[in-house]
Amino acid sequence: MAKKNKKIKASILVIGNEILSGRTQDLNVAFIAKWLNLKCGISVNEVRFIPDLENIIIKNILELSKKFNYVFTTGGIGPTHDDITAKSISKAFKVKYEYHKEAFSILEKYYGKIKFNDGRKKMAKMPKGSSLILNPSSAAPGFKIRNVLSLPGVPSILQSMLDNCKQYLNKGEVTHSTSINLKTVESNIAKSLGQIQKKYNKYIDIGSYPFFRLGVVGVSIVMRSSNKSKIKLCKEEIVKMIKIKKIKIFKN
Amino acid sequence: MAKKNKKIKASILVIGNEILSGRTQDLNVAFIAKWLNLKCGISVNEVRFIPDLENIIIKNILELSKKFNYVFTTGGIGPTHDDITAKSISKAFKVKYEYHKEAFSILEKYYGKIKFNDGRKKMAKMPKGSSLILNPSSAAPGFKIRNVLSLPGVPSILQSMLDNCKQYLNKGEVTHSTSINLKTVESNIAKSLGQIQKKYNKYIDIGSYPFFRLGVVGVSIVMRSSNKSKIKLCKEEIVKMIKIKKIKIFKN
Repeated sequence: MAKKNKKIKASILVIGNEILSGRTQDLNVAFIAKWLNLKCGISVNEVRFIPDLENIIIKNILELSKKFNYVFTTGGIGPTHDDITAKSISKAFKVKYEYHKEAFSILEKYYGKIKFNDGRKKMAKMPKGSSLILNPSSAAPGFKIRNVLSLPGVPSILQSMLDNCKQYLNKGEVTHSTSINLKTVESNIAKSLGQIQKKYNKYIDIGSYPFFRLGVVGVSIVMRSSNKSKIKLCKEEIVKMIKIKKIKIFKN
Repeated sequence: MAKKNKKIKASILVIGNEILSGRTQDLNVAFIAKWLNLKCGISVNEVRFIPDLENIIIKNILELSKKFNYVFTTGGIGPTHDDITAKSISKAFKVKYEYHKEAFSILEKYYGKIKFNDGRKKMAKMPKGSSLILNPSSAAPGFKIRNVLSLPGVPSILQSMLDNCKQYLNKGEVTHSTSINLKTVESNIAKSLGQIQKKYNKYIDIGSYPFFRLGVVGVSIVMRSSNKSKIKLCKEEIVKMIKIKKIKIFKN
């Protein structure tokens, strides 16, 4: 990791008809978002799911790469006809879509010369000038070009590769968070919580999330900030408020 | 449901910091997408996750409502300070943000006059001219204005309300799908599958999705089309192809 900036923002572009149709439940966004925040101090500020269509991938890559410090793509870098992420990103950045020498030799070694067929060779084709994101679980690497990092869609493979993205990312300020779970409903605390949020607007995002657990209704209050001591102060005020209202805290 | 159009396209706008931070796993997109396709013949063509920020909500509502037949929003219609979806949509469409008479009376009846506090009253505030999406599980209604339908973020509540959206939607052509699960890896079938996709390009989307099940590697081939008989023909060709390649089918 290189120099330390303050606010670094990323977006995630989920590419795949199977996610848009609801056939496959996306699990990568939450995983990448947590990893980026905890390990790199980078927040995810926008996510998009789009279909496997070249013109739409190009448009979104250009938009998001301009708007955010980093764009992570998931999906569409396998060997089949519907895997068009690498080719589309090449077109977006107007660079050649060609064999990456190192990727080619990694894959050739992994499969052996005889089994290294056209489909497998396709996985070594990338935008010219890409750097590799190595894949410890199934060899086929992802790639990084400009501020775009392309990862596969299969969660277990993606997760095994994330740490290999770190070298390409500048580190920002980690967002800390703490939460209190209350035995109440949102509307009982909405007004007071709004007042506390107003007071801490500059430092803290307070979120309020209703939940059902073991048949009981509750609310999670989540405080998020890069400033730990402000979170502590804010939490104390919330605890004071719920004591006055005689609201109980969930123990787990 | 009114008249029957051919291709009707929707987008989903997921509003909430808790989704972008990875704290909460979104489950609504897949549910809405499946429901829209099966019950209404409507496809979801783009999904965005955005934070609880007014100017960003406004921008996305305006963009997506122009681009698609319908926009579904999830999240941000509760009683707390971070629930700003209804107010932001009012601003986007330059209409008043005000009490909806029917929503107000539904909520007043549900909570009783004494317990109907400011937070709860807030849930009756909507863009002027909205129609209600009734909520059978926790009373607070969603709303529909122009081509935007706003639903809550809690999955169980959202799911109970979806059928009440139907009255506002034109029905399109249902997309049928069928799949075959193969004991192989993608790169073994990539070339042949690409040729079959080329032949059926006009009618069918063929997707190829690797999976791991009980320690075995496999590939799901999914065919999607509004034309059932073309799917049948296409499936026959794929079965022929895998027989030639001596690839086995997973039985479940």
